[in-house]
Amino acid sequence: MSGDSHPAGAGTEAPIGPEQREVEDRLVETVLSSFDGTEDPRLRQIMQSLTRHLHAFVRDVRLTEAEWNAGIEFLTACGHITDERRQEFVLLSDVLGVSMQTIAVNNRAYKGATEATVFGPFFVDDAPQVPLGGDIAFGAPGQPCWVEGAVTDTDGTPVPGARIEVWECDEDGLYDVQYPDGRTASRAHLFADADGRYRFWGLTPVPYPIPHDGPVGKMLAATGRSPVRAAHLHFMVTAEHRRTLVTHIFVDGDPQIAIGDSVFGVKDSLITRFEQQPAGEPTPDGRDLTGRSWARARFDITLAPEGT
Amino acid sequence: MSGDSHPAGAGTEAPIGPEQREVEDRLVETVLSSFDGTEDPRLRQIMQSLTRHLHAFVRDVRLTEAEWNAGIEFLTACGHITDERRQEFVLLSDVLGVSMQTIAVNNRAYKGATEATVFGPFFVDDAPQVPLGGDIAFGAPGQPCWVEGAVTDTDGTPVPGARIEVWECDEDGLYDVQYPDGRTASRAHLFADADGRYRFWGLTPVPYPIPHDGPVGKMLAATGRSPVRAAHLHFMVTAEHRRTLVTHIFVDGDPQIAIGDSVFGVKDSLITRFEQQPAGEPTPDGRDLTGRSWARARFDITLAPEGT
Repeated sequence: MSGDSHPAGAGTEAPIGPEQREVEDRLVETVLSSFDGTEDPRLRQIMQSLTRHLHAFVRDVRLTEAEWNAGIEFLTACGHITDERRQEFVLLSDVLGVSMQTIAVNNRAYKGATEATVFGPFFVDDAPQVPLGGDIAFGAPGQPCWVEGAVTDTDGTPVPGARIEVWECDEDGLYDVQYPDGRTASRAHLFADADGRYRFWGLTPVPYPIPHDGPVGKMLAATGRSPVRAAHLHFMVTAEHRRTLVTHIFVDGDPQIAIGDSVFGVKDSLITRFEQQPAGEPTPDGRDLTGRSWARARFDITLAPEGT
Repeated sequence: MSGDSHPAGAGTEAPIGPEQREVEDRLVETVLSSFDGTEDPRLRQIMQSLTRHLHAFVRDVRLTEAEWNAGIEFLTACGHITDERRQEFVLLSDVLGVSMQTIAVNNRAYKGATEATVFGPFFVDDAPQVPLGGDIAFGAPGQPCWVEGAVTDTDGTPVPGARIEVWECDEDGLYDVQYPDGRTASRAHLFADADGRYRFWGLTPVPYPIPHDGPVGKMLAATGRSPVRAAHLHFMVTAEHRRTLVTHIFVDGDPQIAIGDSVFGVKDSLITRFEQQPAGEPTPDGRDLTGRSWARARFDITLAPEGT
């Protein structure tokens, strides 16, 4: 199966002859057929596809034994740094865009539905509820930011009572769970009103680096890539009979968008204007910000039907 | 690049539309271009090829988010069971045939040169030397086996003084390094004589399972695969100006060859007749086996030139 689609690859060495190609092809077939007895057809499909693509990779690049060894050592280092608080394999999947591709595959483009992006490692299940217009920051440092919008179906019908989870880092680029003191801040859930409208106070998002003191960080450095994520605010929106939406909004004008979000989460449709407001500018709900500047953003959310 | 060669895959769901395909294609291109700044061209090539194949895998099988999670957990478990004495990522590479494909890529078929196979995790650098005709078992339990042959170039010219490393498990399926007592047994090196000929006493090889109490063993069980390796005796042959040969000989008639060697090491050319000899049958060197049966095998070794 890999004959014509996987030519010699590297280009720096002599092309492989038919005898060698036959040896490599036959090995792929042997490994594929070793999975023929798998009872679960889905597991069989996955293992056989994985086999095909891994072998194609080794053959395409003509992987050397030293490189194979480096790969084993890299995976081992990822395994050894991973613990309850640190998941290097998720980071690896993220920076290779594999997480984002999995999101793409499972959240198909559907008419005008809001696009999904990566879930990330910082969601917490039992974030507190705030009322409409409430403050999710709970004292976390950062510029206050008013966020509002409406939740609708793809035909424009409001989705009253949609559950909206929001979470973000503080102005130091850290999520509450990254502090050792067990604080809960910059995360909450709220419910859209009878017209599907929502509003809350949060913080203006800032860029921050993913943990890059491990093997994944080394790989990013070796390939000249930035570990920084474009500034964003996380949303997860659930409503009966609608597909759950996991997404972010990104900040229009954030230079990291052009440099490249380290986990490839940015989609054009998710880049949102965060309008800077000078100190003293009246707030939508009359909140007194005691002389601080603030920002405002509007994010209308369109949900796809369940099962799409 | 993956457009036409990676159709929807699973077959159980609706084919993806052009809009969805475009989203997925664009993501692959974005990840690929994130590696454009890699200084080392070989690293760039490897990361971009890996990206292509991983994304193609996710798209081909339409990987679900639950399956992605299971994959992350599997890799984490492999990392956590790996230590100084146990290397689960090597096992994983072995049972997916990736190790064997790497061997194939780096040891191209060359005229009549003896074929290579996997190195395995049980080689030890400083095995003792035995003289020609010596016993490498050093007391390890098993049926005595006389092994002899000649080392030549592909044109038949003898390779005098070739260094031959041999190692194998005992009749309980264990290598010396798998015992906690630090023993050295069933391994040695010797040198071919002035005519390239060699001979030694070893043990008749027996099948044994790879370590299968970890995540790789679970995967083998879930896919109905045997963890057992076909019986074999390891060789590593080095000589000046020749490509180093790492290989095994397998036992003709071993039923595990038909069942399938768990790491895909078997090649037809390496299957060797081990002739059983009844107790009392005179030995080639007059050794007295005190009434035990024995076996004999002939393995002629053909080395490719260096750099092929």
